[in-house]
Amino acid sequence: MTHPLCLHPDRLFPADPAARAIARSLHADVAGLPIVSPHGHTDPRWFAENASFGNATDLLLVPDHYVFRMLYSQGVPLEALGVRNPGVDPRAAWRLFAERYHLFRGTPSRIWLDWVFAEAFGIDVRLEAATSDHYFDSITDALATDAFRPRALFERFGIELIATTESPLDDLRHHAALRESGWGGRVITAYRPDPVVDPEFEGFRANLARFSELTGEDCLSWRGYLAAHRQRRGFFAGLGATSTDHGHPTALTADLPLHEAEALFRRVSAGEFSAADAELFRAQMLTEMAAMSIDDGLVMQIHPGAFRNHNVGLWARFGRDMGADIPTRTEYVRALKPLLDRFGNDNRLSVILFTLDESVYARELAPLAGHYPCLKLGPAWWFHDSPEGMRRFRKATTETAGFYNTVGFNDDTRAFLSIPARHDLARRIDCGFLAELVVEHRLEDWEAAELARDLAYNLVKRAYRL
Amino acid sequence: MTHPLCLHPDRLFPADPAARAIARSLHADVAGLPIVSPHGHTDPRWFAENASFGNATDLLLVPDHYVFRMLYSQGVPLEALGVRNPGVDPRAAWRLFAERYHLFRGTPSRIWLDWVFAEAFGIDVRLEAATSDHYFDSITDALATDAFRPRALFERFGIELIATTESPLDDLRHHAALRESGWGGRVITAYRPDPVVDPEFEGFRANLARFSELTGEDCLSWRGYLAAHRQRRGFFAGLGATSTDHGHPTALTADLPLHEAEALFRRVSAGEFSAADAELFRAQMLTEMAAMSIDDGLVMQIHPGAFRNHNVGLWARFGRDMGADIPTRTEYVRALKPLLDRFGNDNRLSVILFTLDESVYARELAPLAGHYPCLKLGPAWWFHDSPEGMRRFRKATTETAGFYNTVGFNDDTRAFLSIPARHDLARRIDCGFLAELVVEHRLEDWEAAELARDLAYNLVKRAYRL
Amino acid sequence: MTHPLCLHPDRLFPADPAARAIARSLHADVAGLPIVSPHGHTDPRWFAENASFGNATDLLLVPDHYVFRMLYSQGVPLEALGVRNPGVDPRAAWRLFAERYHLFRGTPSRIWLDWVFAEAFGIDVRLEAATSDHYFDSITDALATDAFRPRALFERFGIELIATTESPLDDLRHHAALRESGWGGRVITAYRPDPVVDPEFEGFRANLARFSELTGEDCLSWRGYLAAHRQRRGFFAGLGATSTDHGHPTALTADLPLHEAEALFRRVSAGEFSAADAELFRAQMLTEMAAMSIDDGLVMQIHPGAFRNHNVGLWARFGRDMGADIPTRTEYVRALKPLLDRFGNDNRLSVILFTLDESVYARELAPLAGHYPCLKLGPAWWFHDSPEGMRRFRKATTETAGFYNTVGFNDDTRAFLSIPARHDLARRIDCGFLAELVVEHRLEDWEAAELARDLAYNLVKRAYRL
Repeated sequence: MTHPLCLHPDRLFPADPAARAIARSLHADVAGLPIVSPHGHTDPRWFAENASFGNATDLLLVPDHYVFRMLYSQGVPLEALGVRNPGVDPRAAWRLFAERYHLFRGTPSRIWLDWVFAEAFGIDVRLEAATSDHYFDSITDALATDAFRPRALFERFGIELIATTESPLDDLRHHAALRESGWGGRVITAYRPDPVVDPEFEGFRANLARFSELTGEDCLSWRGYLAAHRQRRGFFAGLGATSTDHGHPTALTADLPLHEAEALFRRVSAGEFSAADAELFRAQMLTEMAAMSIDDGLVMQIHPGAFRNHNVGLWARFGRDMGADIPTRTEYVRALKPLLDRFGNDNRLSVILFTLDESVYARELAPLAGHYPCLKLGPAWWFHDSPEGMRRFRKATTETAGFYNTVGFNDDTRAFLSIPARHDLARRIDCGFLAELVVEHRLEDWEAAELARDLAYNLVKRAYRL
Repeated sequence: MTHPLCLHPDRLFPADPAARAIARSLHADVAGLPIVSPHGHTDPRWFAENASFGNATDLLLVPDHYVFRMLYSQGVPLEALGVRNPGVDPRAAWRLFAERYHLFRGTPSRIWLDWVFAEAFGIDVRLEAATSDHYFDSITDALATDAFRPRALFERFGIELIATTESPLDDLRHHAALRESGWGGRVITAYRPDPVVDPEFEGFRANLARFSELTGEDCLSWRGYLAAHRQRRGFFAGLGATSTDHGHPTALTADLPLHEAEALFRRVSAGEFSAADAELFRAQMLTEMAAMSIDDGLVMQIHPGAFRNHNVGLWARFGRDMGADIPTRTEYVRALKPLLDRFGNDNRLSVILFTLDESVYARELAPLAGHYPCLKLGPAWWFHDSPEGMRRFRKATTETAGFYNTVGFNDDTRAFLSIPARHDLARRIDCGFLAELVVEHRLEDWEAAELARDLAYNLVKRAYRL
Repeated sequence: MTHPLCLHPDRLFPADPAARAIARSLHADVAGLPIVSPHGHTDPRWFAENASFGNATDLLLVPDHYVFRMLYSQGVPLEALGVRNPGVDPRAAWRLFAERYHLFRGTPSRIWLDWVFAEAFGIDVRLEAATSDHYFDSITDALATDAFRPRALFERFGIELIATTESPLDDLRHHAALRESGWGGRVITAYRPDPVVDPEFEGFRANLARFSELTGEDCLSWRGYLAAHRQRRGFFAGLGATSTDHGHPTALTADLPLHEAEALFRRVSAGEFSAADAELFRAQMLTEMAAMSIDDGLVMQIHPGAFRNHNVGLWARFGRDMGADIPTRTEYVRALKPLLDRFGNDNRLSVILFTLDESVYARELAPLAGHYPCLKLGPAWWFHDSPEGMRRFRKATTETAGFYNTVGFNDDTRAFLSIPARHDLARRIDCGFLAELVVEHRLEDWEAAELARDLAYNLVKRAYRL
């Protein structure tokens, strides 16, 4: 026995009929707007080479840490799913997933995946044990067709722009190739300097050596190291980058006197540093990056608060990004003060703040963004990129920061096919939130219509200078 | 003048008519399922001896810290209510309560108590000054009848199983008597070792001496102390226990090298330890208990975060459990790491996490439980065991942990008569939550029906290995 | 093109039609109750002198930090708005505001201001660029009339009582003048001792000298300093004060032995103290103030958790209260224990707790207030004084603290014209919350009606001893 799969046109709208009717109308007006994806982790090679994606398991299961973390939590070994284990039969791995698809009830993964199944692949039965092979075959067959190559999907999905994220050590060859290819899709990069900014990053010292090679600067001197950043930021901007991205354990910033910064850099670049040194160096670098942003106009994104690679056993066997990153409590008010003391009132600077700690939405982030000209709030992020997570974000931030200190939606994903699903979800939730304000007479209908377009399209273009 | 008391069949369901209709239908299907109560504090003596409960005040007022803490907060002395003061006229104490029953408006105590009054005792007027004597007499008279003895109520309430909680020093005589009595009710114990695990527990050293006596082990040696635990765990399991329970001030775990653990145990068992030693010893014991659980299969419950006996004046006069336990901020991500580093990927281990700090639901607990195979989330606990508390729990945890990393409901109470009321409340709130997902097209109706049964009955049996 | 402005009679009520109908009916019953404003920052001079308020910009824009912080966050210089810059053309400043009024969509400022525009001034078009001059002229013209003088507005707004807040160093001349004026409006003061209690307050030592002069006590001796407080509290009470107010960075309290308190006071009064000394002194003073409250009956209000003057650049140019106060995480359970250990069970003491950290509502404040006889919960405060903020407050606190451990509404504002708007908002949100409890059959309709009146009027009079 199988169950039908059909996306309801009113999905994710508020239950109340009056609010639902308004949400439906607001959504009708923004559903067709182009997708602007200013922050994410798709692979530029896909678009440069435009090769087919392979089979269902390789595309949808193996790379999606949302999916395999849930299966792992219920006792499925990662090896059996094919994660870093190419010997596995992909059809058998898919079956493990299909048999356990009920585990995703109530999660955003379920919403995104059902969209991919129904909208991208046109499947009309639900994923479960009985439909496992049907799914595997339908998806794998479709992926072999030209209509499912990366560029075709990019165009079909109505993507106006997508940003990827690269290390300063990346040569951006795929972005360069894309520029030269004549294809009209706009794929830009973003500057993510963690590998040369975080002394605790794997291979940090080797990275500095490579940074010197790439730039011709002496990256073992503080002055040369900063110059190398300036040079690479310029190189990235030349390939379209409008932003930088910083994924630190905390939001700490620092503004050390020059000689202290130099001494600190000597310690970290020599590999002789304490955990406190590493933290202070990352903190100092946020302020240095802000200074560079004032010069070159790149928008800063700060993504703090993840405890990376929490599961030591898994990390030893599989390495990074195995779904074992766990959010932690994150403080912003004191942490950001050094950077804000120096640049907080400078209208040229734009810093977009994210958090994994929802308790700071109303307490810290909205009051900060509702005051400092340089601060904006990024959308609900990662574990909170979900219907309830987005609603909590809007309810907790809007009253103090307003809508116009936020920056629209980020899909922040490497799961390319889910990008339209994620934007669809975000637009529906935002329209529902606006509809509730209209029903409670806290907003006029014409204002809600303006806001729906701003949240879906205008704010992101303005905030990311696109 | 009196007011009628009547439990509305739609109570606690969502306001929206479409969601309410679905909730009603889901609930109709689970309302009659047996009650499985895997964690609580009822007295096994009640079921072993099956004596009558006494009067209304002794049963419902004196032992219920939810009730007397509210009355105390509004200036009623505990002595006047009969708390640790048997000389008080129970009818007069009841009147103090009846006159102030409006204080409970909007609280779960009000919901539980109204259920007990209406359903258990068949009273049809509201509790207030004018009905105080009527209540006292009706309840007290009923309690004298055979239909209100513990075993009769157990059966009438449809309880399939109830777990009590005992110290390792308890001889479990009532549980043994129950086994031999031939009565069909299933009452099991749970291993709560705080009195011999927490160096700051009243009488800790005397408890260790008693622990040695009971087990024949030398509980002043680390090896003997651990062996004693293993032995008593086995004894508890023999009388039905499937779980242990750990009520520490924090969630800290530790995994010390043997010689450090031994040295630490020497200090705490000699009574010569600092507060930091005590905390570290409790932390180490969580990891030791996990190791034992892998061997004997007992499920671990961790209940951290209460500041016990916060009110020194009350504590000096009345002792423990006087309604003056206050939740505190609780950290899990770093705290649990030592235990998880050692056993986190072991599918044989099952650890159920509780919290009094809701800010960790979405930030820490759901991401942890949605990744580690050994972790599950206990339900909304203690102060959060309420309609809004349960809704916040589901909304904050489901999107990352799903439903299947949760364990069903715990009533966690010594208020025996309120047990069906608490399960009724939990089932209604869960059905309402599921109904809202259905109305928003985030779940199919047949999935919600499956989930309603899982949340009410199946998950608890699986999680507690019942 | 302009848009009509019209306050909908159902604004801020729940969307669900059944709940809305109940909310409407509850609200109809309390909408006309007098306003009791027990905590705020209006200027007693207004009522004493009864002079006109000036122009629209001076009244509504320049003094309202909610408004100018939002405009500043979007790049408008404070100088251009006329903040501490009287040279600015007020009409041009108003236009900057009018052009950006859309920034306030979804904020409580928008709700309050629309009320002021529509109800206080009878304006029937929305504020936007096209209506900027019409607004400026209409408001400025109205303010020149007798109907818009402070006393006339006080009466028109149905204010039964308003409390202002003064320093112990204030001579209360305006309050004294009001007493002698024969005008019937009740304007009382409140004792806010921060300038002589916080060693880090600007001019602390000079303030102590002035404190000595005013009282004739030797305020450089601990005994004399405490006696000066007692004397000034008595003076304030003589001019109507029923409360004190304490705006500390944290909720820390201390209860030092006399000789330690004396030594600490010597350090802080000599200006030779560490940050830890300052914090400890403020902590000790909360306990000293509690002791005095037991004697003189003044209710204590504790308003902790703001990081004041976070923006150093703005602070250097403009001074205090420039919209750059940011909430911080705030702990209560351990912080309040010294005070509670000494006075927590004393029914004569009444302490009203506020917070800017919503994560403590359910975790710390409701459990504390639901137990200690001396503690009550103040309403949602400052950044949380908004529809969603108030709903979160009720949902998070009611189930543990009940309604009767709360104290009604505080407008806490210096924006005099917004006072009725704020009480209107609070009453509507409370009625909506009660209506939802009725629709879910968690409360009877007659109980909700009683509660609506208690929350709007009775509780505040009782809690503040008015």
